[in-house]
Amino acid sequence: MIPRYSRPEMAAIWSPENRYRIWWQIEVFAAEAMGKIGMIPADDAATIRKAYDADVLGEIDVPAIDAIEAVTKHDVIAFLTWAGEKLGPERRWLHQGMTSSDVLDTALAVQLKQAADILLADLDRLLEVLERRAREHKRTPNIGRSHGIHAEPVTFGLKLAQAYAEFARNRTRLAAAREDIATCAISGAVGTFANVPPAVEEHVAAALGLTPEPVSTQVIPRDRHAMFFATLGVVASSIERLATEVRHLQRTEVLEAEEYFSPGQKGSSAMPHKRNPVLTENLTGLARMVRGYVTPALENVALWHERDISHSSVERYIGPDATITLDFALARLTGVIDKLVVYPERMMKNLDRMGGLVHSQRVLLALTQAGLSREDSYALVQRNAMKVWESDGQLSLLDLLKQDPEVTARLPDGKLEELFDLDYHLRRVDDIFGRVFGRE
Amino acid sequence: MIPRYSRPEMAAIWSPENRYRIWWQIEVFAAEAMGKIGMIPADDAATIRKAYDADVLGEIDVPAIDAIEAVTKHDVIAFLTWAGEKLGPERRWLHQGMTSSDVLDTALAVQLKQAADILLADLDRLLEVLERRAREHKRTPNIGRSHGIHAEPVTFGLKLAQAYAEFARNRTRLAAAREDIATCAISGAVGTFANVPPAVEEHVAAALGLTPEPVSTQVIPRDRHAMFFATLGVVASSIERLATEVRHLQRTEVLEAEEYFSPGQKGSSAMPHKRNPVLTENLTGLARMVRGYVTPALENVALWHERDISHSSVERYIGPDATITLDFALARLTGVIDKLVVYPERMMKNLDRMGGLVHSQRVLLALTQAGLSREDSYALVQRNAMKVWESDGQLSLLDLLKQDPEVTARLPDGKLEELFDLDYHLRRVDDIFGRVFGRE
Amino acid sequence: MIPRYSRPEMAAIWSPENRYRIWWQIEVFAAEAMGKIGMIPADDAATIRKAYDADVLGEIDVPAIDAIEAVTKHDVIAFLTWAGEKLGPERRWLHQGMTSSDVLDTALAVQLKQAADILLADLDRLLEVLERRAREHKRTPNIGRSHGIHAEPVTFGLKLAQAYAEFARNRTRLAAAREDIATCAISGAVGTFANVPPAVEEHVAAALGLTPEPVSTQVIPRDRHAMFFATLGVVASSIERLATEVRHLQRTEVLEAEEYFSPGQKGSSAMPHKRNPVLTENLTGLARMVRGYVTPALENVALWHERDISHSSVERYIGPDATITLDFALARLTGVIDKLVVYPERMMKNLDRMGGLVHSQRVLLALTQAGLSREDSYALVQRNAMKVWESDGQLSLLDLLKQDPEVTARLPDGKLEELFDLDYHLRRVDDIFGRVFGRE
Amino acid sequence: MIPRYSRPEMAAIWSPENRYRIWWQIEVFAAEAMGKIGMIPADDAATIRKAYDADVLGEIDVPAIDAIEAVTKHDVIAFLTWAGEKLGPERRWLHQGMTSSDVLDTALAVQLKQAADILLADLDRLLEVLERRAREHKRTPNIGRSHGIHAEPVTFGLKLAQAYAEFARNRTRLAAAREDIATCAISGAVGTFANVPPAVEEHVAAALGLTPEPVSTQVIPRDRHAMFFATLGVVASSIERLATEVRHLQRTEVLEAEEYFSPGQKGSSAMPHKRNPVLTENLTGLARMVRGYVTPALENVALWHERDISHSSVERYIGPDATITLDFALARLTGVIDKLVVYPERMMKNLDRMGGLVHSQRVLLALTQAGLSREDSYALVQRNAMKVWESDGQLSLLDLLKQDPEVTARLPDGKLEELFDLDYHLRRVDDIFGRVFGRE
Repeated sequence: MIPRYSRPEMAAIWSPENRYRIWWQIEVFAAEAMGKIGMIPADDAATIRKAYDADVLGEIDVPAIDAIEAVTKHDVIAFLTWAGEKLGPERRWLHQGMTSSDVLDTALAVQLKQAADILLADLDRLLEVLERRAREHKRTPNIGRSHGIHAEPVTFGLKLAQAYAEFARNRTRLAAAREDIATCAISGAVGTFANVPPAVEEHVAAALGLTPEPVSTQVIPRDRHAMFFATLGVVASSIERLATEVRHLQRTEVLEAEEYFSPGQKGSSAMPHKRNPVLTENLTGLARMVRGYVTPALENVALWHERDISHSSVERYIGPDATITLDFALARLTGVIDKLVVYPERMMKNLDRMGGLVHSQRVLLALTQAGLSREDSYALVQRNAMKVWESDGQLSLLDLLKQDPEVTARLPDGKLEELFDLDYHLRRVDDIFGRVFGRE
Repeated sequence: MIPRYSRPEMAAIWSPENRYRIWWQIEVFAAEAMGKIGMIPADDAATIRKAYDADVLGEIDVPAIDAIEAVTKHDVIAFLTWAGEKLGPERRWLHQGMTSSDVLDTALAVQLKQAADILLADLDRLLEVLERRAREHKRTPNIGRSHGIHAEPVTFGLKLAQAYAEFARNRTRLAAAREDIATCAISGAVGTFANVPPAVEEHVAAALGLTPEPVSTQVIPRDRHAMFFATLGVVASSIERLATEVRHLQRTEVLEAEEYFSPGQKGSSAMPHKRNPVLTENLTGLARMVRGYVTPALENVALWHERDISHSSVERYIGPDATITLDFALARLTGVIDKLVVYPERMMKNLDRMGGLVHSQRVLLALTQAGLSREDSYALVQRNAMKVWESDGQLSLLDLLKQDPEVTARLPDGKLEELFDLDYHLRRVDDIFGRVFGRE
Repeated sequence: MIPRYSRPEMAAIWSPENRYRIWWQIEVFAAEAMGKIGMIPADDAATIRKAYDADVLGEIDVPAIDAIEAVTKHDVIAFLTWAGEKLGPERRWLHQGMTSSDVLDTALAVQLKQAADILLADLDRLLEVLERRAREHKRTPNIGRSHGIHAEPVTFGLKLAQAYAEFARNRTRLAAAREDIATCAISGAVGTFANVPPAVEEHVAAALGLTPEPVSTQVIPRDRHAMFFATLGVVASSIERLATEVRHLQRTEVLEAEEYFSPGQKGSSAMPHKRNPVLTENLTGLARMVRGYVTPALENVALWHERDISHSSVERYIGPDATITLDFALARLTGVIDKLVVYPERMMKNLDRMGGLVHSQRVLLALTQAGLSREDSYALVQRNAMKVWESDGQLSLLDLLKQDPEVTARLPDGKLEELFDLDYHLRRVDDIFGRVFGRE
Repeated sequence: MIPRYSRPEMAAIWSPENRYRIWWQIEVFAAEAMGKIGMIPADDAATIRKAYDADVLGEIDVPAIDAIEAVTKHDVIAFLTWAGEKLGPERRWLHQGMTSSDVLDTALAVQLKQAADILLADLDRLLEVLERRAREHKRTPNIGRSHGIHAEPVTFGLKLAQAYAEFARNRTRLAAAREDIATCAISGAVGTFANVPPAVEEHVAAALGLTPEPVSTQVIPRDRHAMFFATLGVVASSIERLATEVRHLQRTEVLEAEEYFSPGQKGSSAMPHKRNPVLTENLTGLARMVRGYVTPALENVALWHERDISHSSVERYIGPDATITLDFALARLTGVIDKLVVYPERMMKNLDRMGGLVHSQRVLLALTQAGLSREDSYALVQRNAMKVWESDGQLSLLDLLKQDPEVTARLPDGKLEELFDLDYHLRRVDDIFGRVFGRE
């Protein structure tokens, strides 16, 4: 966890306090269920539950638990020892027939579910901002670029609508990953329920908003976690895409949009004029990290037999690091898009700078429709287009075409001029917005 | 593509012939739609469709197309040039207003959908075999192992039921990934539909069993592909898990199961007695490869602006390699499980070799339930358990406990013997099977 | 292996013929050594060697060997059976005391060494081209960009000199990786030399240009291969860096350099004017693939005990794929740089377009040296710089500074003009070239 | 950074205090050099140096610097502002002509060099322990296993000698990576030395034990860092290999060695008899993490133009995380090997349990040498070996061979018995130890 890339709400999920509190819930709810089915005395179970409701633990004394763990070298036993002191003799019924993994894995499921909920909310905020800015620039013309080369006009709103659709897909994927991860295992040693019947698991699952793990092997199978972290890696890659777009738009020669630059900010210790897209560069790096956590999560799947503990150290890193980083990145991206300074005039200036080359395809199509073969049409357009290209936008394609008798034989001046109409390219924007945001 | 790790049906998806045939379908169905909406002459569109129905292309002449591409350096133009020769002048209407990406990306979507269908069928076969073998060994006792160390009894059927549940999850994930990838984009340059209206895309999508891409940017966004390949990486990791289980079970000292070893097979050029788990070791390696394709797929997401073509070379590798390898691996795993030689006697022998230590937890619980504190119970069991452990299974935990007065004060002989009952551990097997396979 | 990304010389290394020929050399040289030390009859050893010198194998009949392997399911035995038929009864001495791994691993070492030699030669050609183009543009002014934003002037030659230095480092790393990989193991089952003394290994190693593996365990340890493929991943990342630079330079708005565009080439099926940086985009994708092979190679290290064969399938993919792809990519990059069309006038035009902002740091320094505090100097420069920035290069920083009395109080007009001298920024180019290419 | 996987010395390298102290050194040494060459007043430079020698900074006030950074949003400026207050007016000469990157990148180089020095010392300690334990068990017989299946005898010392050789290679690689990373860049904006001559860089480099970066572009090129982290990934993979070996040896059925289990330690909250290889399982997970940092480091190489800052966030994670984790893992592995409890009797028992099958290859060779063809010899051995295999070690290969007339026709009883001599397999152990540790 890097403090500067952390937000408090997500970081809190990974605090020892939150973890211990979830452990406590698991133990208490399990005892409650055991009381109901007569596995332990009902009165003692009720006493435990009441102690829970009265928050008998109070402040979690992390150093005290750490001190016990230093001796036992076992975290759950250390916690139970500490927590047991807050109870009377009914403490003996805690953890009956359970294993540490029942507690650890179910708690991790709760933490990942909590984390997913924050990430889903992050995505909601991002989607909201993307929609707002997309609608704002729905018809702001912008040159579309393939291979970094001017192609044909789009609108800036379309770019953001694409990003919206992409993050909406990511929301769907993350919601599925959240379901995948949100399971509860209270199945005892090697998962046979020999010492703790499924009813306990079912009760704890319901109390925690989880579903029971159909077959655990002391641990919850790690394909679930692998899918979860792989999904975060996909979301991160989409962040990189949009961040890269902003970085490109802010390049000196392009400068169609800029990250908001606050008054006191210094871009460079040496060059006072600089306004750098540092937030989106930062997001590019953060995306690399979240992606980097995918492979360890995949490697965690192949545990030996019913379980080994090699996954645990990995999860101590990537549980917090992947979710905290992604939360921060989503919030940062939301801020960047929210406050992005957009320069429509510059967009139009760039669009125009190629001497009308961006309309070449339309001319090509018109020639074909006028009866020329595709190959001949292509040759005709290209010989004029190349002159414009080589003039660095000083020549105009429209002018050259008007002077090319082989062209004018098929397409008279008036017809040619029509083909250079910007609105032509924007005529389906409503359709696309309708697909993405729904009809209004 | 490594021939030895390829199966013909999946490999055929990635053949040039299949690719060109899909391209042809896209062009023909697009022309058909254009005819309907009057974008091109209806008669010519009908002529093209008829030519398609009559299979005018016949055998695809790949070398001829390659020869054209060597000149044009453009694959779609090369194909259209070749295919156009099979038509009359109506050929001019092919590809109207479309870009190469419309063809390439939609075709890739079809290929990945076809590949996903094979993989789903592979999973179905694997699930079928897993269920059969799980039911066969539903009550075959087997020592459960955590950390490679004997824990408590499970059954071999439970192991396979776990694998079944894991691959059933993978089936669900893959089905979602298939939906995610199965979209059609016929939106023209930079995706604005300026030269080809959405109706064409909708028609082609329906004809190919795809859904229209809500907003493309000349290309289908690569987050879809990233999700697809990430999902394959998760499936591969589950393969590694089950393969690793078999490798462990086949170890000389364990030998509870063995890959089927055909009569003519030689295990080693030097040591004639050896029967090695080479298929599952091979699967372990194949899983590494499929996982290795995840990161390039994630890196493909951040294309520049409306598109660049950096994703293309990556997909030429991982499209075939990931799907062919995974198909092969799933089939191989299915064969391994199908023919796995299981040794129930050896399983029982191993289970017994620890002098009854596997029942220690039950004793611990019983002592607790008899009124002893958890800590004292633990100490009591551990001091006897350690002696057994150090005897390498020569001493019996039951015998030692019977001789420990502090134990017998709480648990008389008869009670102790009950605690060493194997069936106790298997009493919830029906519940678990019910959860995994449904009640019968 | 993707044919379009393969070059014949590198692909040949991975042909079955080359592999079998190396196997043959290993077996023959081993027999020769065994003859020398009396492990097998000297005459028979000499007969085998003579048969080798006479090329008794002739053309390798791969299908015949495949047919034998289909029965034995063992590749080395299949080859030995086929090759043995070319010999008389002395064939019995082949492979004495050896294991398949002795042959397979040593052969892989030879193949990787051969591959490394080609890659080193590729790097040499790239370095040669980089040096030539760097010297050609040693003093071609070019705006340096940090964060994609104009910073201060550099030269285009400096960019290439940096690339030269980077690839020179990669050459050093690859040479080390080649040494690391080039070892020979002829140590028999589990590597104890029980049945074949070290002298045999030493002889074969010398004959093949390898060093003996100090301690093998039947297999050559895979940390060597991991280091090799990790090094290829670093080289690939440097390729991506230079390819990305070219992609940026070719952007429409920048257009300071372009990939060579051959007369017949079509940039787009739709937009005839387009010249896209498709080679460098392709290189970006290829770099992703070579990087993708690093992790499987790292996962291959942890073999079980003396060996398992999980590494083998991985190496069947990445051995050819990583080396063939990198060879192709290096050659393609060399071609791109060799023929890169450079536009010095456009470079100068871009450099000038910011109204002199690129000289702001020099003014800042001069103000400091004239006695103003750093903070005040910064504020003074920034308030003028911001105006220029906001004018989109229409205002001139020099003009504004000349009109700012707080500035002119410290720096009179003549002094200010001096600070806007381009040569100032290029005065250390000779020093840097001297460091990179050596003094002339 | 995960506190439980951190050791203080390595963690201290990544503390803000250490980073600021290095920044201070860079600024002071640079000023000193500037004074020498007359770039700033010699007296002021001397004053700064004296202030440094007198430790004018004293305790680094991190919160104070953070507070300044919160305003300036620029870390180096924040530090310089804070540190400048400790000086008189000579503070104006600090950072003359330099950029933040000069400070940041050179400081990172110092930190990585410091980290590498600790890791090299870690490797030295590990090598020392491996050598000691290898010599201790140089002749402790142990069954060699390929594919997890008994093959032929080795010694436990040989296993450790192999590990020694592997980590000795890793030491060489890490030493090379340390050299690669240990460069100094003080080259000013975009690396041209326009405002700060190479002499300053050379002075600072010498003072910090670095070499000057031949050509930087404001930043030190990231191929160096990529190589560094890739090397750490290789070391981690070797850790995983040795950790996996221990995990296998500790399996209940094998139990040839065990991690040291301290008296107070509890293996399981449920099963008191368990001693789990938790340290080596933990190491397996830690290796996954260190490997996971390789790809982000490789992705960091392709910065845009002269620099972007996407690498920075990645390095804030992986700089500390990779080095701290690897340091911890190496120390933990050293402890595991140092205190590993080895059971030679159990090793011998396992070795014997296969009824002498481990000697089958020797019989095969002897039959061949007695004149039988390889194929016939193989068949003869295999038909007896298979019976032993199927008896689960109850039958003895030697006994069966003595009863097989086709065998005894070539190999009489005495000869056969010789072939079952364990020492035969160990006769080259001295040779191998000589290669690995040098002759004594």
